[in-house]
Amino acid sequence: MTDPRDETTAFTPKFGADGLLPAIAVDAETGEVLMLAYMNEEALKRTLATGEVHYWSRSRAELWHKGATSGNIQELAEILIDCDQDTLLLRVRQRGPACHTGRPSCFYRKLVTDNPESKELNGTVQLRFMDVE
Amino acid sequence: MTDPRDETTAFTPKFGADGLLPAIAVDAETGEVLMLAYMNEEALKRTLATGEVHYWSRSRAELWHKGATSGNIQELAEILIDCDQDTLLLRVRQRGPACHTGRPSCFYRKLVTDNPESKELNGTVQLRFMDVE
Repeated sequence: MTDPRDETTAFTPKFGADGLLPAIAVDAETGEVLMLAYMNEEALKRTLATGEVHYWSRSRAELWHKGATSGNIQELAEILIDCDQDTLLLRVRQRGPACHTGRPSCFYRKLVTDNPESKELNGTVQLRFMDVE
Repeated sequence: MTDPRDETTAFTPKFGADGLLPAIAVDAETGEVLMLAYMNEEALKRTLATGEVHYWSRSRAELWHKGATSGNIQELAEILIDCDQDTLLLRVRQRGPACHTGRPSCFYRKLVTDNPESKELNGTVQLRFMDVE
């Protein structure tokens, strides 16, 4: 189970076949998970160089300077990487809401199961909006 | 930018081309990010049915009942889903360490840049182990 990537101080990110790493953005103060997006090497370089978070937009297939149009910039506090170097954790100071819906976090609904024993997901799992203070 | 997936209470997960959804596991009490792994539909069904988190292991290409061999089970508190329904957030009660290295979280190293202006990542980015209490 152990891998040299687990203990090295060398940065050897394991980008996926699509050239992307998932990046979890959390609020640097509260630790709240804000969103998950993807970075390619260029997005990571720009993030480190500018101190403002850049992603790769999979839907638009372009570099995405988060907040460049909305103003909802993510100022980088620090980046952590996981044991096998295939996921980033971004600690950010979020200006305005993180989510494009205007909510503070993209995670505003939870799964509710009528019948957890069911073998099917369709119909037995619904979503419920969370209270947001 | 808005999509019907953003506001619906219907559960319509957007599995990737590989049939997987990334799932961020956080400690249900503290909110600390523990790890990121992937679920396919079967892993999600088993998680909901058993109350213990199951993933799809991409390296072993098999269903992975987290902690089944190590004992480091993740008891499910709740699952949130993001705006466009392509990422899960699992709130879990983690028994023992989450990381296979024995650390509480897989995110135990941070990126340190000698020269943020550099156009290269190799050599200019190193990792530093975080203090863990």
